[in-house]
Formats: sequence, C-alpha cells, structure tokens
Amino acid sequence: MPASYAYLGPEGTFTEVALRTLPETATRELVPYVSVQSALDAVRAGEAEAAFVPIENSVEGGITTTLDELVAGQPLMIYREVLLSITFALLVRPGTKLSDIKTVTAHPAAQPQVRNWIKAHLPDVAWESAASNADGARLVQEGRYDAAFAGEFAAARYGLEALETGIHDAENAQTRFVLVGRPARPAAPTGADKTSVVLWQRDDHPGGLRDLLGEFATRGINLMLLQSRPTGAGIGNYCFCIDAEGHISDRRVAEALMGLKRICLQVRYLGSYPRAEVGPADVGTPRPGTSDEEFVAAADWVARCQDGRF
Amino acid sequence: MPASYAYLGPEGTFTEVALRTLPETATRELVPYVSVQSALDAVRAGEAEAAFVPIENSVEGGITTTLDELVAGQPLMIYREVLLSITFALLVRPGTKLSDIKTVTAHPAAQPQVRNWIKAHLPDVAWESAASNADGARLVQEGRYDAAFAGEFAAARYGLEALETGIHDAENAQTRFVLVGRPARPAAPTGADKTSVVLWQRDDHPGGLRDLLGEFATRGINLMLLQSRPTGAGIGNYCFCIDAEGHISDRRVAEALMGLKRICLQVRYLGSYPRAEVGPADVGTPRPGTSDEEFVAAADWVARCQDGRF
Amino acid sequence: MPASYAYLGPEGTFTEVALRTLPETATRELVPYVSVQSALDAVRAGEAEAAFVPIENSVEGGITTTLDELVAGQPLMIYREVLLSITFALLVRPGTKLSDIKTVTAHPAAQPQVRNWIKAHLPDVAWESAASNADGARLVQEGRYDAAFAGEFAAARYGLEALETGIHDAENAQTRFVLVGRPARPAAPTGADKTSVVLWQRDDHPGGLRDLLGEFATRGINLMLLQSRPTGAGIGNYCFCIDAEGHISDRRVAEALMGLKRICLQVRYLGSYPRAEVGPADVGTPRPGTSDEEFVAAADWVARCQDGRF
Amino acid sequence: MPASYAYLGPEGTFTEVALRTLPETATRELVPYVSVQSALDAVRAGEAEAAFVPIENSVEGGITTTLDELVAGQPLMIYREVLLSITFALLVRPGTKLSDIKTVTAHPAAQPQVRNWIKAHLPDVAWESAASNADGARLVQEGRYDAAFAGEFAAARYGLEALETGIHDAENAQTRFVLVGRPARPAAPTGADKTSVVLWQRDDHPGGLRDLLGEFATRGINLMLLQSRPTGAGIGNYCFCIDAEGHISDRRVAEALMGLKRICLQVRYLGSYPRAEVGPADVGTPRPGTSDEEFVAAADWVARCQDGRF
Repeated sequence: MPASYAYLGPEGTFTEVALRTLPETATRELVPYVSVQSALDAVRAGEAEAAFVPIENSVEGGITTTLDELVAGQPLMIYREVLLSITFALLVRPGTKLSDIKTVTAHPAAQPQVRNWIKAHLPDVAWESAASNADGARLVQEGRYDAAFAGEFAAARYGLEALETGIHDAENAQTRFVLVGRPARPAAPTGADKTSVVLWQRDDHPGGLRDLLGEFATRGINLMLLQSRPTGAGIGNYCFCIDAEGHISDRRVAEALMGLKRICLQVRYLGSYPRAEVGPADVGTPRPGTSDEEFVAAADWVARCQDGRF
Repeated sequence: MPASYAYLGPEGTFTEVALRTLPETATRELVPYVSVQSALDAVRAGEAEAAFVPIENSVEGGITTTLDELVAGQPLMIYREVLLSITFALLVRPGTKLSDIKTVTAHPAAQPQVRNWIKAHLPDVAWESAASNADGARLVQEGRYDAAFAGEFAAARYGLEALETGIHDAENAQTRFVLVGRPARPAAPTGADKTSVVLWQRDDHPGGLRDLLGEFATRGINLMLLQSRPTGAGIGNYCFCIDAEGHISDRRVAEALMGLKRICLQVRYLGSYPRAEVGPADVGTPRPGTSDEEFVAAADWVARCQDGRF
Repeated sequence: MPASYAYLGPEGTFTEVALRTLPETATRELVPYVSVQSALDAVRAGEAEAAFVPIENSVEGGITTTLDELVAGQPLMIYREVLLSITFALLVRPGTKLSDIKTVTAHPAAQPQVRNWIKAHLPDVAWESAASNADGARLVQEGRYDAAFAGEFAAARYGLEALETGIHDAENAQTRFVLVGRPARPAAPTGADKTSVVLWQRDDHPGGLRDLLGEFATRGINLMLLQSRPTGAGIGNYCFCIDAEGHISDRRVAEALMGLKRICLQVRYLGSYPRAEVGPADVGTPRPGTSDEEFVAAADWVARCQDGRF
Repeated sequence: MPASYAYLGPEGTFTEVALRTLPETATRELVPYVSVQSALDAVRAGEAEAAFVPIENSVEGGITTTLDELVAGQPLMIYREVLLSITFALLVRPGTKLSDIKTVTAHPAAQPQVRNWIKAHLPDVAWESAASNADGARLVQEGRYDAAFAGEFAAARYGLEALETGIHDAENAQTRFVLVGRPARPAAPTGADKTSVVLWQRDDHPGGLRDLLGEFATRGINLMLLQSRPTGAGIGNYCFCIDAEGHISDRRVAEALMGLKRICLQVRYLGSYPRAEVGPADVGTPRPGTSDEEFVAAADWVARCQDGRF
C-alpha cells in the first residue's frame, strides 16, 4: 500500500493544516488533489493509502460532495476525524489598504463565514469565487483580485500580507475533516468513539424514519449528525448519513446496526473511529441497561434459559 | 424423576379432562391435589414430574393463584398448554326437578359462567360455594345441596343426572391449562409457539411499561396475554405476566428477551411451548426484518463490518 | 337523588370502616349489600346515590368483580377513592385458646394475607370460606367454626374476642375502595388526581398495546394501574383497565384521552378523582412540555399560525 | 402591497421558467434578483409581494442557501411550490463544434447533473463556475468561454445554439421551487397539501430526534423532507427543516404542531400549501384514527366526559 495521503488541495488550505495535526503524516507523502472526488478516487484506485477531506462545517453543515462520494460508489471507510477552528485572514499584496480593495475572492464555502464582515467593512466590494482559498490567494498574488480570504498561514506562501486576521461571522466556526481509506478493520475502540452509517429506508410510511432512529434511541445511543442526501431516484428520495456515539465493537452499537440492517433497504457502514469533539472525560456513561456488561449478561441469561439452566 | 403428574383435583373436574388430552398421560400416574399451590409444590419438591393447572379462562381472565405461584418462589417452567371449551351441566340427584332446586353449588369460578342462566331459570336459588365443581357434585350426592354446576362427565362418578347440559353464559367459554415442571430445556420449536415471561420494572416513570412492550413490538412480536400481578411491595406495585408469540430459539424472541433483561429490574423466564390456540396454518409470517434468516444475515453483516470485510 | 350510599356488606367489614372515613357519610344512610354487583346495581337503578366497593388490594391486585362491573353494563363513574391498611385479628368466642382451634373461616380474599400466619401458628387447621369476613365472625359466634379472621373492629359486634391482632403476611397490605355513582361532572381537580379508563384495542397487531400506552407516555403521564380483563369474546381477548395520573381537565390528560378515543375500538371513561395514595406534596411536576400552560401556549401558537399572525 | 414577484435571476434560468407556470404571474411584474438572499430580502422589505426561489433538487437535495434564509431572520412563509424537470442543453456560439470546446461554464449546481456527460464527451474540458446558468450563457456569448450548460430556452436570448439537448446525469432530475411571502393566512387546504416547519431540539439526548418525529408518526403523518441545517451554535448543532404531508387546518397536523411546539426549544412555521408532486388521486387516505372526523369526534367525546354526559 502506497505510503501517501491524498488531500483536498491545493497546498496551503485549512485542509492541509488539519491533516498535519495527524502524527503519522510525518512519515507519509501528502499529495494535494484538485477535488474531493479525485482524492477519494485515488484511494479507490490504490494510488493513495487514504484521503483527507472536509465532511462538515459549523456554518454550512455536511459537505455534500464528500457525503455523496461516501454514500455511492466503491465503499470507503472513515478511520480518523480532525476538528479545526476556522478563522480567516484578509490577504493582500503588501501595501494594499482596505480602501483600495474593490474585488475579493475565496472559495464559495468561505462566503457565509465572512459575509457579515464584508458587509461591515467592505460593503461595495465585488465577490469572485475561487476554486479554493489558496487559489484565491494565488490570484491575488497574480494581481487578478485585490484581496483574498484565506487562512493566515497562506500569506507567506503567496507573498501576501494579512490586513486583518481572526475574521469569522460565527463564533465557534469549525470544520471537521475525515481520513478515509479502503474498508478494513476499524480502529480499536477508545471509549469515546463515533460510528458512521448511511441508511436507505425500505419503504416510505408514517413513522418509517422514526423507527430507524428508534434503533439507536432504544439502546441509549446519541446521534451526532443526521444529514439527508438524495438517492438519485428523484426528488423526495433521500438516504440518511448518520453519526452515532459509540464503536461497532460496543454491544449496543452492534445490535443497533443489526436492527437497522434488518429493517432498512440498505445500510452502508462507514466506520468507527475516535471522536475528535470531546475528551474521554466528557463522554457520558451509557444509559442503564446499555453497557457492554449488561449486554453480555443478558445474552448469557438467554443462553441459560435456552438450556433450562437458571 | 417420578413418572407422575400432579393436577388440580379432585378427580372429575375439567382439569382432569383437559389433562387426559395429553398423550403422555397414558404412561403417567395422575395424582389429584387439593390446590394449585400444593400441586406446584409437589413439583418443586420432586414428588411429581409435572403439575397440570388452569392458568386463564375466557370469563375470569388469568387465574391469579396459578400466576402468583409461577411469579414467586422456586422457579418453574411451562412445557405445554391445553385449551378446553367449558360448558356446564346442572347435576341433580335422580328425580329432582328444576322446581325442586332451592340451593346450588359449584366452584366460585363457575359463577360468572352460569350467572345469567341462574337468573333466567332459578332466580330465587341460593348459591353456595364449593371447593371444586367435583366437590360440589359430591355435596349434592350427599344431599347437602340440591344441584351442582359441573362438567357433564361428573354425573356418572357421583351418581347424579344432568337436568340441563351445555350451560354457558359466554359463547366460546374456554379454559387454558398449563403443564408445569422444573426448569429444563424448553420444548423444541414447532413454528407456532408461545413464550411466557414475568417482568418487573426497574423504576416507574412515564413510558416505562411502554418501553418494555416496545422490546416486543419493535421486533414484530405479538402479545397474547398481559396480566399484572401485585409484587407484594404495596398497593400499585405490579409485575407483568406476558405471553408472547414465538419461541426463545427464534432470534427475534431471544433478542427481545435480552432487551428486557437489560432494562428490567428482573425477568423470570417461564418457558416456550407449542401454542394450543391455533393451528400452524393460522400463524402469520413474521413482519419484514424479523425472520431468523434476517437476524442471522444482519449478525453476519455486522461481524463482517467489524472485520472490515464488506 | 336518594341520600344513601350502598356498600359491600355486611356491616362490620373493612369496607364499612373505609367508607366511614368519608366526611359526607355523616349525612348519608349507609346501606349494606350482599355483593359488589348488587351494590352497583342499586346505583344504576337509582336506589342509591353511590356505591362503595373495593377495587384493588396489595395482595390480590385488581378486584375483578368490581372491575368487570365497571367495564360492562350501564356506565358508572368513580368519584372518590379510599386507601385502608389491612391487618387481621383472629376472633374467637371468649375463652377459646389457640390450641382449641380446629377450624378457621374468613372471606377467600383474606386467605393470601393470613396464609403464612396460619402455617406458622395453626398448621393443622381446616379453612372454610365465608361469604365475608363479618359473616365468618357471625359463624364463629354461632359456634359453626372456632375462629375467624376479620378486622379487630368486628369483635365487639359479634361478641368475640381477638386472640391475636395485626396479622398480615405482607407488609403494607392495603385495600383501595372507590365511591361509584352515575355519570356526572367529575370532581374538581385537586392537583393530585387520577383518571380511570377502560380501553378496547381496535385490532391486535404487534405494538398495538404499546401504541395505546404511548398516548400516555408521550404526554408524560404516569400509569398507576394496568389490569387486563376478558372482553367475553373468547380466551385471549382482553380490555385494559387503566389508572393514569392527572385529571381529565388537565390538557395532557384530555389530549391523551382524545388520542385513545381515536385509535381504540372503544374507550370507557370511568372518572377523574383525587388520589388517595399520596399527598399533593408528593406529586411530581409535569415533564417539560406537558403542563397546562404549555398546552395552552401551543394551541394558541397553532391558532396564530393558522391565521398568519406570528 | 406591490404587485411584483422577485425571483432568483437572471432572466432565462430554470427559475423563471418554473415561475411562469404560475397563472398569477400574468398579472405580476417579475423582477430578477442576483441571489436568493436578495430576493427574500425584497419580500421582507416590502419591495416585492413574494419571492420565487429554488428549495430542493433531486441531485443536490435541499438548497441550503434558501433553507438557511427561511430558518433565520424575519419570518417568511411558503405559499406555493412548483416542480420542474431539469435537463440541460450545451449552448455554444453558432459554428462551434464539440471538438472546439476547451472551456465550459454553468452554475455550480449544474455540475453534478452534467458531470458524467462531460466525462464521456468532453473529458479534457476545463470547468469554470458561473454565477448562474444564464450568466454562463452570457459569458459564452461574450466569448469568454466556449460552451455553457443551461436550459435550452436560454439559447435564443443569448444568440447561442444548442449543440446537444436533454443532458442529465440522473433520470428524473427535478428542481422544486417555492413562492415565499410575508406571514399571512395559509392557502386554503386542497386535500393534497404539505406543511413546512423548522424544529430546534430542546436538548440533545438519546431519542430526542426520534421523539420529535414521533409527533408526526403517531398521528399517521408522512414526512417528505428532513434536512438538517446548522444552528450557528457550533459544529454538531443542527435544526431540522421538515416537510410533512397535510395542512395546518387538518386536525392531525395541528395537533402534531402543538406537540412539537411543546417539546421543542423552538418551532418556526413555514406554511401549508398545495403539494406539487402528486395529484390528489395519489394521496393516501389517512391512517385509521387520524381523520378530521375522528379528531372532532374524539374532542367532542372528551368534552362530554368532562361534563359527565355520556
């Protein structure tokens, strides 16, 4: 397996910064790709060991391109996640003053995070979308636009300077990234894990989705993400990308997945991996009756009943 | 193990008639006991292989004496059930006419089944309770009362004649009897089985009982009896005797029992045994997603996910 | 309306003692009846303003005779309940010693409450059922039996003496009695009330009963009694007598009853009345979202939405 | 109120084509706006009577810009919806051949619908995002790009010709548009309606979302869209945009909304309006117990119980 990680490029974006927080990147070649799709295809084709792509941010919600790639095509699995706080710098060619700025650029995903700042400080500026925030910085370097919103770390790379830093419309703006690979044994449970699945309903009836969620709820499993995505079968046809607390090796999670497998048209397992959000100390104790010990004891009791020994 | 069956006596009651429908009684000694409690104690003490007692009738509902014996004390298990249609004969000493009858007797359980008939035909008669219907017949034989309500089969034994037969206030009056033994491996599944359990709630909160029943409902399991019985911890404290469709070797039943074991304070397994009510042809197909095949497939799928092979 | 209360007689039973705890009995004529049925029929016939009968005890559970009378026939309503702690005295003719006692009597309902005491102190005694505990005392007075289990208060009435008092197998043995009248406006809510209904399921399918209970659970309403009673349509056909926390004038209870009325084959309302069990201080606050204020606010909000004013 | 409809411009897009299917546009001035936000702000500011914007498409799912505008800010309401089948034409300057095309443009939303076609027919082409499909056509007219994906109807307006028509990666590609106005009385029910709401959970616990959905499910109400949107309170904090079958004047819908109002932190009502998807003939009959008649009958019954008349 090639010791390289694909990531959503270009270099100098938040994605690269997040990726470099993973210790193993020290021993991997990090290869930027022009799109989420191409990065994931590199994994599917065996050209990369894994791909690192954004999957959710606190302003836009689920990154639909990434979700749609995980939902369809050759199965992939999530092995790690990274959370990165996102604030923008306004990068300009040295010497540019705020009043000089007539055009700004950035990736469209940046727009909702800087919209209010623009309204307040650059109300008459023209916005031009760039292929990435780093690419926006490059276009400023080339003189095509006057300023770019990007991570402050991009200034040095493109010979720009930060006229303003810490720009963020929403407090707590964060982006979540995932490291995706080909299916293999999930990471070992840490006690603070997350399991991702995609669910397709068998049929559509009142209560259908409630029943799916009931497989988690009756086993005391919290949901951390529920994102509907079109199935491609026409408007109103959705599958559901779900992140649930816990690891597939937790009995309550395994039984919930079994239940979903039985009642859904289709279930795609996307992996179990350590949660980035909170430290183990913040993870609640399982609801009474849902711990591994209780599952094992209950299974043992049923086995004894089946044998008439109790 | 002694080759004898205890049953709720005396001889000549509906219980004995129902018991004799079991083929194996041909090779057992059938021993009448004076009470349900004493018959079950004979099993507990090893004096009888099994006991045959009434557990439910269509007029009075669950037979509380039997249920309470199964709920408490040394565990017992149900291995068979028998349904018997109940109609009464009015037994008198030969020569007695309807107009001669001033006193009637029978077991108190007979009263609701003959109440309307008495109102219509013997409005001024005095009712005296007997220890059993057969005992009532004996008391008529002895001249203590004028008439007894009992099974027609009791007439010959006590030298009485049936002045009227087929007496029953309620159409479809039936009594259900069970053959109870010490815990052992349940009878093999037949495809039309029933599983009996007693449930004690962990705590009392809105939705507590609904959640218990949900363990059956979400797995497509029909309930056939739900009878609350006092726990002895004071008024308003109940446990629940439940008969559910299916056998503990059915995956959906086993998983439901596991779920109950996890969320209940206590669960007592009372056995899985062939249903007497209906022929196999009347048993519905399991709800989609609840067949053994689907359970096995789902468990296999989760195992493959845990191994990264899918 | 006649200013008399019927009650389950004869005089000198626990029922009468419980009845006399109601202040209004000072101005009512209290008339004993020979059975629950006859007391309730007196109300139906307009011969009595109300009837006072036992409905539940901590040893035997629901009193099926009473429940069955409330379930069927001309509708009646419960207006009050009384809880009475039950302990028995062993009543004998003056001079009788424990070792003299060969026969004891009492109402069959007393048996489970004195069974263990008998085993310990009168292991060889013969038990004879009496029509009531007071009638048992009368039979002892007449010399027919040696001793009777009854309330200590019955000794004086029948010229007996209490050889032993405070007999009770189960701690906290209590009986609950209800005052039943013809349908009228329920008692005003007190803040610690109870609502009684009988439910008949529309059809029998997995989850049917769970869905009925869900009407209470989703509105945060605790259940205090669930007692199944045969419908008379054959074995396995049950209706459910339910006591729920709250008053029909509580919005959450009214909406739950509406929901039941819609999904049940039939609902019989048996009244809303002050709870005897606990003082108002013990009554929990409603679950968030289920208070009257929240119901009113939500209804008001929907009305404003329907009008486009929000 | 100004007799103008704002819409997501520019002229010549699918949005305008869908808007013109509404009969009342014959008597309205139709004013293109540069963004969903500006069109909706025109309504909020009273400059336009209503705004017509895309809200969902079969390839991308919910249009997040539109949803986020409806979720936050001054309340708006949906009064109509229109479904339009989407296929693209490849527009070029007259004379351009397929082999001449080095650059293509369109709105980013078009990309997933033409991706496969591009792979197959223009594998080496460079994609440039345009502000709208119509703007893309204009840029081709100006010679900036070689070809644009747009509705065939845009060719005439920009002096282009359609080299290929009917391009669509997904069968049944449709976009749903809504007509949005200031809050007012909803459109009258038609028998085939839809109700839109936004829900914010009170707190996050296992089963929280299931309970919200249960308010619909227990009343037999189908869901047609469930789209989570970030609340802005940080990653993992979502509200839910839900489209449910039925009209707020349907009793079952009104009661479900009341229930949600009680248990949610916040509910925003977005309107009830005729469903575009299916004809009235396709609309299922309500589940037993959920028709208006049954709701009215149940409310009447509870009122009679409260008065003691039944």
